[in-house]
Amino acid sequence: MAEKRTRIVVLGGGFGGLTFCRSFRLPDADILLVDRHNHHLFQPLLYQVATAGLSASEIAQPIRSILRDKPNVRVHLGEVESLRPAERQVVGNGRTLEYDYLIVALGGQTGYFGHPEWEAFAPGLKSLEDAQRIRRDVLMAFERAENSEDPVEQQRLMTVVVVGGGPTGVELAGAFAELARHVLNRDFRRIDPARARIVLVEGAPRILGTFPQHLADDAAATLEKMGVEVRCGLRVRDIRSGVVEFHSGERIEAGNILWAAGVNASPLTRDLGAPMDRTGRVLVNPDLSVPGHPEIFVIGDAAAIADASGQFVPGVSPAAMQQATHVARQLEDEISGRPNRRPFRYWNKGSMATIGRSAAIAKIGPLEFSGYPAWLAWLFVHLVFLVGLRNRIAVLGQWFYSYVMYRRGARIITGKA
Amino acid sequence: MAEKRTRIVVLGGGFGGLTFCRSFRLPDADILLVDRHNHHLFQPLLYQVATAGLSASEIAQPIRSILRDKPNVRVHLGEVESLRPAERQVVGNGRTLEYDYLIVALGGQTGYFGHPEWEAFAPGLKSLEDAQRIRRDVLMAFERAENSEDPVEQQRLMTVVVVGGGPTGVELAGAFAELARHVLNRDFRRIDPARARIVLVEGAPRILGTFPQHLADDAAATLEKMGVEVRCGLRVRDIRSGVVEFHSGERIEAGNILWAAGVNASPLTRDLGAPMDRTGRVLVNPDLSVPGHPEIFVIGDAAAIADASGQFVPGVSPAAMQQATHVARQLEDEISGRPNRRPFRYWNKGSMATIGRSAAIAKIGPLEFSGYPAWLAWLFVHLVFLVGLRNRIAVLGQWFYSYVMYRRGARIITGKA
Repeated sequence: MAEKRTRIVVLGGGFGGLTFCRSFRLPDADILLVDRHNHHLFQPLLYQVATAGLSASEIAQPIRSILRDKPNVRVHLGEVESLRPAERQVVGNGRTLEYDYLIVALGGQTGYFGHPEWEAFAPGLKSLEDAQRIRRDVLMAFERAENSEDPVEQQRLMTVVVVGGGPTGVELAGAFAELARHVLNRDFRRIDPARARIVLVEGAPRILGTFPQHLADDAAATLEKMGVEVRCGLRVRDIRSGVVEFHSGERIEAGNILWAAGVNASPLTRDLGAPMDRTGRVLVNPDLSVPGHPEIFVIGDAAAIADASGQFVPGVSPAAMQQATHVARQLEDEISGRPNRRPFRYWNKGSMATIGRSAAIAKIGPLEFSGYPAWLAWLFVHLVFLVGLRNRIAVLGQWFYSYVMYRRGARIITGKA
Repeated sequence: MAEKRTRIVVLGGGFGGLTFCRSFRLPDADILLVDRHNHHLFQPLLYQVATAGLSASEIAQPIRSILRDKPNVRVHLGEVESLRPAERQVVGNGRTLEYDYLIVALGGQTGYFGHPEWEAFAPGLKSLEDAQRIRRDVLMAFERAENSEDPVEQQRLMTVVVVGGGPTGVELAGAFAELARHVLNRDFRRIDPARARIVLVEGAPRILGTFPQHLADDAAATLEKMGVEVRCGLRVRDIRSGVVEFHSGERIEAGNILWAAGVNASPLTRDLGAPMDRTGRVLVNPDLSVPGHPEIFVIGDAAAIADASGQFVPGVSPAAMQQATHVARQLEDEISGRPNRRPFRYWNKGSMATIGRSAAIAKIGPLEFSGYPAWLAWLFVHLVFLVGLRNRIAVLGQWFYSYVMYRRGARIITGKA
């Protein structure tokens, strides 16, 4: 039998898939990375594109240039349509790709708790297109308010409701409050954007449930000081065009409603025929392989795995990257003839959320802090992990400019409303 | 009779309309600027967005922030549907705006010499959306070529035809050649982007007809050296999906066909009922007013007026800005009770076209030069006139990075193909 090169197919060019491709060291395997976008997206800063702080190309980097010096990695731009684990095949764009090993790193998508019809009225924030759409819609609402002569209509158009009090919801609400109060405030003649109403809605009794109580309290107080209405214990019953209704009977009319409340795994994970949790994440083996399919691994937001303490590993980029490296090491050993499957261990480096200019909260190991130091830490971490030297410089420049001048540059409306 | 404030409506937030608003000094007039975009676009650099050198927000600036400190200027974001010169009204977005003076600064749109059906297959470059579409389509064609296994199809997908050898066509062709040969060249595994075919087609016997012959020859030689096929005397007979046919019988199959051959005035100028040239430009009076309507002025690309030598004033931004200032001075005098209509005089500051990295041609007064000095002059002039400090810094940074690293950062594909 002739020597055959091992074929590894990686689905998804996010933090997980890309880290796998970059950290896999054996030259005698062919890796094919499939993604429907030509860019890797720095998700943690996506909310800044939605709130006109950064432009799309500053938080995205072409996948091909990231993998430029990996000769055994090919990139295939295309949509995956189905997985055929029994045949060891992936189908997409009318083609069938064969693999010896499959790495599923497809991430998640916005989840509406069984109400997909809400998506049309309350978009989520997962892609650059989402971010550009939200930016366009919110800026257009202020333009419509300026053109309107009805004060009730003006106030409705200037209302933004953010559903979901996790880090993304907090970041969006804070950034919109700053946009309205400090950037748009002198742009208009008939409306006063400082009177914009930004409402952050959370179903649980407090926001930022994954952070310690006192940090969440700090964040809530900062948001209120910035003019955000923080409403906890309010559960959404229905969303229609321009209206959110809550189980309490309350309803809020808003020019824009944004959804930051739920994430589901990519629906393609269903094709694996493996056990899943209720958000569609695959309950993987300790070595991150799929039960019954030692040749398939799921990493990142699409994988459900408990850490040493019995808690599920959170859907954050450091977890995806650690999982990618774990799988890469296992496969290198296996392909080199030294199979050595071992359980994945998550090293929690901490978590952070930014609330606005000079304000953030951070929990790093035993350290818990908030305010300006946390914001500096947030800035530092995000700049260090942003892919691409050019983007790092551009983003730093934008932030410096925004910080000093209190003006946002990227508030350009493109595309059809 | 009560004192009535003069109402001036300005249509279009390009170089003409914006310069009028910024340079009009009388506080006792209300100016309403109407534009369908929320941004002023720095058109001379639009080709760099199309060729992935700059991102959209780097060449656009929100109109509201440009006019922030002009309290008597209001901005109305909306589409103008018709002009009613007899009633002194402008209709748009279901509303009727009344004016005492109307400034029509609507610019132009891509013109297809009586073949509007070509637009679907050969997009022009007039807006940010156009530029983003072209960028997406060209980058996607390379992705499709990489996914294809048919060498003929690969070569077709890697072919870009630019129709029109004026400055825009030359800039586009040069930038695409650099993109393929120096940026994308190491990104792919199956195709060699350096083998991309960039064809610049011009109907006249030479490119850059408005420049002196020896400068145009320099430009053509530089383009050829960069790998662009410069084809003069080729007149387009038909354009269909992926094919250009010429009167000579020749046909070229291409993954992308771009149209940089013709500009028509905005079709709204027809409503003025004034004499027009064949591209729809209004044949204005020497003071830039519309025959029969001393209260309506047309400035910029939509105006046809001869300069002292009997030649038509070219459709370039300095001309639009000079016309805007001319009209502003006339109206200030008239509203102050000292009517003083006078003929517009165009001061030709020169013209430039850039061909690529370190190469350009320039004609400034009696000076005619090409190569590196012309490129530096081009760089300087474009940075100085780019609106907004932030954009100037960002663009300079991008250019420096591209120049030193030979990599382009903005080649992100967004939106649906």
